[in-house]
Amino acid sequence: MHTLTESEKSHLLAAIRNVPDYPKPGIQFKDITTLLNNPEAFHFLMDHLVKRYADMDIQYIAGIESRGFIFGAALASLLRTRFVPIRKPGKLPYTTISEKYSLEYGVDEVELHIDAFSHGLAHPRVLLIDDLIATGGTANAAVNLINKAGGECVEACFIINLTFLRGDEAIKKTTPVYSVLEID
Amino acid sequence: MHTLTESEKSHLLAAIRNVPDYPKPGIQFKDITTLLNNPEAFHFLMDHLVKRYADMDIQYIAGIESRGFIFGAALASLLRTRFVPIRKPGKLPYTTISEKYSLEYGVDEVELHIDAFSHGLAHPRVLLIDDLIATGGTANAAVNLINKAGGECVEACFIINLTFLRGDEAIKKTTPVYSVLEID
Repeated sequence: MHTLTESEKSHLLAAIRNVPDYPKPGIQFKDITTLLNNPEAFHFLMDHLVKRYADMDIQYIAGIESRGFIFGAALASLLRTRFVPIRKPGKLPYTTISEKYSLEYGVDEVELHIDAFSHGLAHPRVLLIDDLIATGGTANAAVNLINKAGGECVEACFIINLTFLRGDEAIKKTTPVYSVLEID
Repeated sequence: MHTLTESEKSHLLAAIRNVPDYPKPGIQFKDITTLLNNPEAFHFLMDHLVKRYADMDIQYIAGIESRGFIFGAALASLLRTRFVPIRKPGKLPYTTISEKYSLEYGVDEVELHIDAFSHGLAHPRVLLIDDLIATGGTANAAVNLINKAGGECVEACFIINLTFLRGDEAIKKTTPVYSVLEID
């Protein structure tokens, strides 16, 4: 499996902007728009993901709204796979299935079209991708949703993992997790 | 400039699902998720866009949230350009500039990071991309925003143009418009 050296990771990390106190005081927001706006870093990252996933027989790439659409659709176009959007409630026009998850206060939900994986494949192999995993609520719900819809989530891939929040622990019980960059 | 034959357009159009009465009664929603979930159609479309834009010296691809992220990031990864997200208010973490536009009732706004095109290029050549143009309010505001931020919007590209709504008329006064598929 293709991984990056520490030096390659440092270069990628240097292309990501820290925005202090966003969206709340005390939070250091990881702004991936500077990475997308740096062609060397952006395409080095995409080339790495192509090398990692090219031989894994991925048929579907599922991206989580909205930044997961960017990396997911880019990878789907390079690997020539299908792309499946996982969205917030009410955004998908056709019949959906959904999965709820808890937030610090209240609940949220993610949705998927009910026929997303209905192409007669015995084991529709799905790669889940998002830009960042923090507490992991959305990502874990997305993995459950893929399985509920008849997909087989072969790996959950995050560009950045805020490992001190241990957001990947619940996912790892059922699904391999790959984080390009870990911040602790 | 690369364009498609009528037969190629028909094949692409057949891959897009019509969802009646979404989001309101009487509206025939064009659901591009079935196109993304059809690898032949999806990558035929992307190959066409690569042929069209490969020699146009595009340095930035700007995509409009959220479905414009899918086609924009896919094309940026294939052409190895920068990708710039244009978002709804409050979604971009760093300093933004914004452009308001009128809706049937009220106003809306799109935002761009203030330093999106600040790489010292004399004429930062930007391709704007979105999945669909209807009345054109968002797209026209996005073109204005790109120009306001110092970019040169060399073309506005839409996968689907609902031509009966004449949404491209305002944009065409300043910027070439290319629509892969026209529905009237």
